[in-house]
Amino acid sequence: MRIPLDRQSEIPLYKQIEAYLRQGIISGGLPADTRLPACRQLAHDLGVNRTTIENAYSELEADGLVFSRMGSGTYVLPANPLPTISKNNSDADWPLWQQSVRDRNIVSKSDRVDEMLKTAGHPRPISFASGTSDSRQFPVNEFRKVIQTVMRRDQIASLEYGEQNGYAPLREGIAHILASQGLQAHPENILITAGSQQAIFLASQVLLKPNDIVLVEDPTYSAAIDLFRTLGFQLVGIPMDGQGMQVDKLEKLLQQHHPKLIYTIPNFHNPTGTCLSNIRRRQLIVLANRYNVPILEDDFVGDLRYEGHSQSSLKSLDTGGQVIYVSTFSKMLMPGLRVGFIVANGPVYDSLLNFKRLSDLATSTLIQRALDAYVTIGRYQAYLHRSGQAFRKRRDAMLDAISRHLPSGVLFDAPKGGLFIWMRLPDSMSADELLPLACKEGISFAPGNFFFTDGVSGTDWIRLNFAAQPVEDIEEGIKRLGTAIRRMKTHRQTLKK
Amino acid sequence: MRIPLDRQSEIPLYKQIEAYLRQGIISGGLPADTRLPACRQLAHDLGVNRTTIENAYSELEADGLVFSRMGSGTYVLPANPLPTISKNNSDADWPLWQQSVRDRNIVSKSDRVDEMLKTAGHPRPISFASGTSDSRQFPVNEFRKVIQTVMRRDQIASLEYGEQNGYAPLREGIAHILASQGLQAHPENILITAGSQQAIFLASQVLLKPNDIVLVEDPTYSAAIDLFRTLGFQLVGIPMDGQGMQVDKLEKLLQQHHPKLIYTIPNFHNPTGTCLSNIRRRQLIVLANRYNVPILEDDFVGDLRYEGHSQSSLKSLDTGGQVIYVSTFSKMLMPGLRVGFIVANGPVYDSLLNFKRLSDLATSTLIQRALDAYVTIGRYQAYLHRSGQAFRKRRDAMLDAISRHLPSGVLFDAPKGGLFIWMRLPDSMSADELLPLACKEGISFAPGNFFFTDGVSGTDWIRLNFAAQPVEDIEEGIKRLGTAIRRMKTHRQTLKK
Repeated sequence: MRIPLDRQSEIPLYKQIEAYLRQGIISGGLPADTRLPACRQLAHDLGVNRTTIENAYSELEADGLVFSRMGSGTYVLPANPLPTISKNNSDADWPLWQQSVRDRNIVSKSDRVDEMLKTAGHPRPISFASGTSDSRQFPVNEFRKVIQTVMRRDQIASLEYGEQNGYAPLREGIAHILASQGLQAHPENILITAGSQQAIFLASQVLLKPNDIVLVEDPTYSAAIDLFRTLGFQLVGIPMDGQGMQVDKLEKLLQQHHPKLIYTIPNFHNPTGTCLSNIRRRQLIVLANRYNVPILEDDFVGDLRYEGHSQSSLKSLDTGGQVIYVSTFSKMLMPGLRVGFIVANGPVYDSLLNFKRLSDLATSTLIQRALDAYVTIGRYQAYLHRSGQAFRKRRDAMLDAISRHLPSGVLFDAPKGGLFIWMRLPDSMSADELLPLACKEGISFAPGNFFFTDGVSGTDWIRLNFAAQPVEDIEEGIKRLGTAIRRMKTHRQTLKK
Repeated sequence: MRIPLDRQSEIPLYKQIEAYLRQGIISGGLPADTRLPACRQLAHDLGVNRTTIENAYSELEADGLVFSRMGSGTYVLPANPLPTISKNNSDADWPLWQQSVRDRNIVSKSDRVDEMLKTAGHPRPISFASGTSDSRQFPVNEFRKVIQTVMRRDQIASLEYGEQNGYAPLREGIAHILASQGLQAHPENILITAGSQQAIFLASQVLLKPNDIVLVEDPTYSAAIDLFRTLGFQLVGIPMDGQGMQVDKLEKLLQQHHPKLIYTIPNFHNPTGTCLSNIRRRQLIVLANRYNVPILEDDFVGDLRYEGHSQSSLKSLDTGGQVIYVSTFSKMLMPGLRVGFIVANGPVYDSLLNFKRLSDLATSTLIQRALDAYVTIGRYQAYLHRSGQAFRKRRDAMLDAISRHLPSGVLFDAPKGGLFIWMRLPDSMSADELLPLACKEGISFAPGNFFFTDGVSGTDWIRLNFAAQPVEDIEEGIKRLGTAIRRMKTHRQTLKK
């Protein structure tokens, strides 16, 4: 490197060298990461003392323009202010670690359907694809007043960190609700979570490590499939029939696969709407005990029954701490509340609590306190009753509309509770192919393959949510679905010719 | 098995067999899991047709008293109703998988200190152990009114699922706050989380797998240590000095350990209170780029500065998407709100969002909307200013009290912001031994070894939170601490004699 020096100047040599390099760095002539010459070399080139160079370099370093890296020389640092990151970065511009991170992403399936319905551009779209009940039922103004009362009453405590396992009175309230459903749980065995999604997440994290095997009903809740896959677990499906999981096939799978967890939705199963028969419940418990496998019982809408007798939860049949029970207020009350809970006995309770603390410290105190105030004054039961009546009417409306608007080739069992009708399309029709046609008519549903572990079974099944829409939209929606199915049939016949 | 049969009776033989077995099962004479004789064998023993036995067994099975296991016979099921789980179960009573789960538990260190202070029984305990600021500063009634306004305005939308990456106006508000701090971030690069704990958790999960190595400042935030350990990561510590992380030691560690993440708290570091020097910030970025290692920047109290010039965040120096920035409203405003956020560019943003969705779907919409309304009307900045003034007074009060009440042997740097004074005890005094004495005097602190990766370094250091208590309690608390230190000295001298 040649640096012009004025040996007659009053400016010391090291200052001249520093100024020359500074100019180069600021102008971009010496870009970031350029290695400056070694002090010894530059001193030789310029015919100056080595300490002169060292002094110049340390001035630059003190100003943050260069830095010396251990045993490898002095490098130019990026200029300040730095250019901002372009939003149009092409993939290759990202660091290598970013490129490898991306491959694990799983896009939410229900989001994809929502997107498709939206972009189809129907003026009044109706969705049967949702996984939750109808939030428009929720008395928001009543809840607003409850929040006011709670904040006035508890003041700053309503916004501070609360107990890590959840607000104690809410846990007591949940214990009372559960007792009314036949499940005896102590409040100290209840852990409040951010919805049942977090409950499933915590249980997975505590019980399994990557490559462990989870037995799931096939089909099952699609976000659970996504979660288990993202965490690196292997899924093995247990087939279902009208009585729920085929427990007679379970033992062989337990022997073959040595799973670390059985994940099951025994009540008003998602997506099939079936309930596990009472005898199978007890068989399931016996097998889990025998093979030392924990059961994760997802009771997301267990108390939303429109007819028939209530059934014992697996947890209530569990004498040995084998069952981890998760449920939620999200589906029944309000999705946005994000309050669910776990019931677990034994050492695993502390592990779940520990993991909860590490993943988000605790769930919002305010919402817990408000929910507690709301639930204890009996409004939850009243609301449940009201919702149950409304949803039963909607189910009946959908069954009626199906009989009038859909071809007779569709197959389904009328569900006794919950949110879903699980329906087989006629003539091995593909739900994936039907969906765009349906969206064009302004109606959406969840295609069956979303819910299967292999992602390809159930292509001629669809899941219809009857609870999320008012009766008049159900009638209109099923009519539209009928139109889409007829179009699809016509389209296929045209292709055959 | 001998079953008395009355061949003259009008009751069919299969019914008699069934009744006999039923009685045995209900009375407990045939306990759960007893294997019933094979049909062929029992038919032979009783001298009846094999189908008679099969009929008897299937009646029992239909009533849920026995069940047939594939290829292995018919077993008695547990009686119903089942005994409830005893709360006094000894460890050996739990399923084997429960026993193995427990070994991974890590008890929160700060909880242990809180517990110790409580059980020491002082009539007016004062804690300097907390990791957060003083929530009593927070205008809870103002926030209550904001919640009212938001719920009246947004109605049911305030309680529904919102956008998965967070309420858009809140993300815009955060972008404005960050811009005022010199960090340009697009709202679509901001992801709302349940506090910064969840932000760190999500980044860890997305970037690392068990046995991967994380470089952390040594000492560092204890809940991050707990989290990384629980997730099975290996920790390698980078030593610190008065300028923060010793970046000159970083390159060698990068070469030796090939870490997958550098976790750093550059501003008002927890526990030491130091700020990373400007030149080290830029060196850190250069090294991370060179070695393809993401940086997780935890800026938990970056805007809580009481004097000196603000410094650029690592994220604002990052041109290549190398830095993932996390911060929170929890420390500054209210811990119980549980709202933090991530700023990330590139594919990793989608991965973080995906993982957020799978771990709890989304953060409470209502709190996000309320926070947005609160922040946009300028109250956040005013609150920050007010808090900053109050906390600076508390810091000065603590420094003053230390000079009057503690022996001159204590060493510390006065922090320019944040929440903590990091102090070395005189005469290699053990913080762990001092703590019980201090709690007896009614004062607590966080022992230094909590924050070191090896859990044993820093035994003569303590972390004092000066922001969480009013001035008069700071004076009283430091006085008590002085008493405890003198007691400890006397005690040690007594032992020496």
